[in-house]
Amino acid sequence: MTERGLLIVLSGPSGVGKGTVRKAIFDSADNDFHYSISMTTRKMRVGETEGIDYYFRTREEFEALIAAGEMLEYAEYVGNYYGTPLSYVQQTLDQGKDVFLEIEVQGARQVKEKVPDGVFIFLTPPDLSELRSRIVGRGTDAIDVIDERMRVAREEIEMMALYDYAVVNDEVPKAVKRVKEIIEAEHFRVERVIGKYRKMLEEL
Amino acid sequence: MTERGLLIVLSGPSGVGKGTVRKAIFDSADNDFHYSISMTTRKMRVGETEGIDYYFRTREEFEALIAAGEMLEYAEYVGNYYGTPLSYVQQTLDQGKDVFLEIEVQGARQVKEKVPDGVFIFLTPPDLSELRSRIVGRGTDAIDVIDERMRVAREEIEMMALYDYAVVNDEVPKAVKRVKEIIEAEHFRVERVIGKYRKMLEEL
Repeated sequence: MTERGLLIVLSGPSGVGKGTVRKAIFDSADNDFHYSISMTTRKMRVGETEGIDYYFRTREEFEALIAAGEMLEYAEYVGNYYGTPLSYVQQTLDQGKDVFLEIEVQGARQVKEKVPDGVFIFLTPPDLSELRSRIVGRGTDAIDVIDERMRVAREEIEMMALYDYAVVNDEVPKAVKRVKEIIEAEHFRVERVIGKYRKMLEEL
Repeated sequence: MTERGLLIVLSGPSGVGKGTVRKAIFDSADNDFHYSISMTTRKMRVGETEGIDYYFRTREEFEALIAAGEMLEYAEYVGNYYGTPLSYVQQTLDQGKDVFLEIEVQGARQVKEKVPDGVFIFLTPPDLSELRSRIVGRGTDAIDVIDERMRVAREEIEMMALYDYAVVNDEVPKAVKRVKEIIEAEHFRVERVIGKYRKMLEEL
């Protein structure tokens, strides 16, 4: 019997190092999940390959997929669409394989609505755990600078509330280890395995 | 700021190997949680030490603790009480340290009611994952034998439903590794860490 794969979503504030952590996970020897390649309308750059770096599509093609409900998540940055096609993700999960998405927070919010039983991991900047020194540490800072830092920190913490796990990216190898442990552990969650046992009993 | 420790509860059907897995976890070098010593009314055996193997108490003393609500969980087996005193567990958790309980399923149910945010891990027999062969595999078995095996399996699966995680005890080192990963991962759960960040912001 094939258990459905896990949808793993790694996200976090921009600049936190999501891409670096994702690459390190995929480069590790014991990696056995599938990376969902994003689709984009931006132009292919030198050295990039269709279907490896991105699926490159025209704006019209991308908008047709959105209209057909075939994007798991998408967003527009500087005039270009970026997103995750639904079909590959569904097929891979149905085959019992885990799918790993590394996406922006807006995208993660969309995925959470469509796949609430995914595993949502929020990567936090190392200094989020040193909020005080980050916000008021330098005594010479103007009030409006401090206010702005407070606002950003508050925003990041409230983003975090939508996730299942928060992992500090203080050192990449440590963050990678934590993300892997989370994924391992999620496979043992009772709500993910009990259905298999109940079905086995029914089928006897 | 001290985060509260995790209460980890390892349980499972009798004979599944809970004690062996617990001992292997506590013998491992990187163990940093605290084992809560049980209290019992049974007689001390040769080689046992008060406060190490058990807290040995009289029936009257034990019943006074139950009456005072000072037992986190307890049960009676063959005429003796066994249970977990609440005070040590609370103090240790308040100090930010994890507490590890290895207890019977009845006890785990009591703990679940009192500490719903504990981490409840159900150790399953290896053959629960081979239900079919276990139940109907040998063609020569009488119907009532098969019925009894079905009943036991159904009971174990429904026990499992009360837990957060189900770990197969196929090989002790593997089960130990899984339990450790679960405990690591639980430390990163957003609901366990977000309060710390919110409080830091408030205090600024």
